Amino acid sequence: VKPVLSFWFDFASTYSYLSAMRIDDLADQAGVTVDWRPFLLGPVFKAQGWMTSPFNLYPARGANMWRDMERTCADMGLPLLRPDPFPQMSLLAARVALVGRQAGWGPAFGRAVFAAEFGEGRRIDDPALLATLVKAAGGDGADALDKAATGPVKAALKAATDEAMTLGVFGAPTFVTPDGELFWGNDRLEQALRWVGKSAST
Amino acid sequence: VKPVLSFWFDFASTYSYLSAMRIDDLADQAGVTVDWRPFLLGPVFKAQGWMTSPFNLYPARGANMWRDMERTCADMGLPLLRPDPFPQMSLLAARVALVGRQAGWGPAFGRAVFAAEFGEGRRIDDPALLATLVKAAGGDGADALDKAATGPVKAALKAATDEAMTLGVFGAPTFVTPDGELFWGNDRLEQALRWVGKSAST
Repeated sequence: VKPVLSFWFDFASTYSYLSAMRIDDLADQAGVTVDWRPFLLGPVFKAQGWMTSPFNLYPARGANMWRDMERTCADMGLPLLRPDPFPQMSLLAARVALVGRQAGWGPAFGRAVFAAEFGEGRRIDDPALLATLVKAAGGDGADALDKAATGPVKAALKAATDEAMTLGVFGAPTFVTPDGELFWGNDRLEQALRWVGKSAST
Repeated sequence: VKPVLSFWFDFASTYSYLSAMRIDDLADQAGVTVDWRPFLLGPVFKAQGWMTSPFNLYPARGANMWRDMERTCADMGLPLLRPDPFPQMSLLAARVALVGRQAGWGPAFGRAVFAAEFGEGRRIDDPALLATLVKAAGGDGADALDKAATGPVKAALKAATDEAMTLGVFGAPTFVTPDGELFWGNDRLEQALRWVGKSAST
């Protein structure tokens, strides 16, 4: 049985895009399974006293983040087009992703949402777009959107966000290993995978 | 003539320690000269509304930073011992480093301060320790501390901090290239060096 790395992400998060587009390949090479865990950064930021993204609250940090994204996407060969507004409302996409987590098309849907949002600059609060992306990921778009609007799925997203905070997650992406090590940021993905490999072999 | 990468650092900054211990070797391999630029994060953080380190203001971020430092120092083979208090008062060390920048022992002194502070957990506001580190770096300890207390050196540190803010520096370490590209964080050191190499060859 392969060890599992939990990939905590919010669809509104720019650096989660970078991880989403490479995590499954890197994990496959490392012999690790990825559990895609959507959650909402909003409540996490509110607990830190921030009512919006710190990249909007601190302009120098925001300017650097976008320039850093431009340079890093160029290095990775990834397209980058800023969605408007930033951050995007990721609530509906996160609920749909939870439906996909049960149904098995969660990772493919996750990559498709990030690619549409940050590669093409599209709005991810558009149910029609999300239905199309579910279908492309191998699911049933209308059915997934119906399920996403139900109480159990709404409650599951709230529970996931609470779980993230309990784990100590304060930003995205965050990678959590089976033995509870927390790695924050796309820059730590390789280190997190090495950690899982070492722990699994001891 | 080798191109120059400016290395903006505050002696109180944990991640600046990681860069300080590797930047000169990496730059040498890349054919780049490093300009060690001490400045003070305090006024930079105050401009963002923070009266102390964000790692103290946001406990989950602080806990992650220390754990991340432990893991990364272990990977790099660097010792890590937390100084008390954190952050350390870096004013005097920064002034002495400016004296060393003129005299030529700035980088060796910089490495020695970071190693004492984060490798041995020592207080860097101790003039006797700083005099010893100046001597080990090839300077005259008593003379350097005398010079550090003069008006021109105090003014030079204020000017450096203003210059950093004008450049858009909001944290440390930050690397600034000859063509004005700003790279924030120890994780971006390699990318910054590649940028300088590309710009210099075109």
